[in-house]
Amino acid sequence: MTSASTRFAARGDHDAVELGTGFAPRFDADGLITAIVTDAGSGEVLMVAHMNEEALARTVATGSAWFWSRSRRKLWRKGEESGNTLAVCEMRVDCDQDVILLQVEMAGDAVACHQGFRSCFYRTVPLGAEPTPDLALGFDAAMRRVPPRKG
Amino acid sequence: MTSASTRFAARGDHDAVELGTGFAPRFDADGLITAIVTDAGSGEVLMVAHMNEEALARTVATGSAWFWSRSRRKLWRKGEESGNTLAVCEMRVDCDQDVILLQVEMAGDAVACHQGFRSCFYRTVPLGAEPTPDLALGFDAAMRRVPPRKG
Repeated sequence: MTSASTRFAARGDHDAVELGTGFAPRFDADGLITAIVTDAGSGEVLMVAHMNEEALARTVATGSAWFWSRSRRKLWRKGEESGNTLAVCEMRVDCDQDVILLQVEMAGDAVACHQGFRSCFYRTVPLGAEPTPDLALGFDAAMRRVPPRKG
Repeated sequence: MTSASTRFAARGDHDAVELGTGFAPRFDADGLITAIVTDAGSGEVLMVAHMNEEALARTVATGSAWFWSRSRRKLWRKGEESGNTLAVCEMRVDCDQDVILLQVEMAGDAVACHQGFRSCFYRTVPLGAEPTPDLALGFDAAMRRVPPRKG
């Protein structure tokens, strides 16, 4: 597989991708790569979003997190509306280079989720029995910070 | 959007999905949902894999992590070959229910990545300049535990 990108390395063979030092991110059929956002202080997973080539390049260049909004079909600088921008302290890529991991410091009131929670993962799934449609998620209400909002 | 599943709740409207207690995971066009695996002790992100409905149901029921291998096109109990099974301490789901988050305790020698590293995220992406194909990833060699292997 090769890439016509002028920004990233071409994807070589399996060993080159997984054990080399070339940055050859794999974008999916929609041109997107998954990005996991964690809190640089606590390590907590805050949210998952997607980047296209432009969003990834801007994030690398600026150290501020840019994504591609699949619902709005536009580039999106996290926090441009809410003030909760994400300063990237460290970026990593996984073995097959199809996931990006960001460690960030949140500006503003430290709310990553548009629903007003510190993290998007504010509900727990009970374990230990076959799931049925009646299974009830647990609500981690202590994660709420502010009312729901955009951006 | 509705689901014919007998295991999970039907996806209701936006508020029901994001603020309700029904477990209505969204599987993509390939029938998969992304699962992030973190270390229950340190919080470190270890790996990302995918679950189909069956893998998700087995993980909920058994508390041991099951995935769908896209490359081998089969259900896969993590660690079935390597011994590094994952005991799930907690499962969460994100706001729009298209990502699963697992907190796990690793059995065996605590190596999540088939390349023999503690985590799949053993390479760092340097920040602060426009990316070019010559950009060199940093290698976090301290993450290596054992030689590369499968499972």
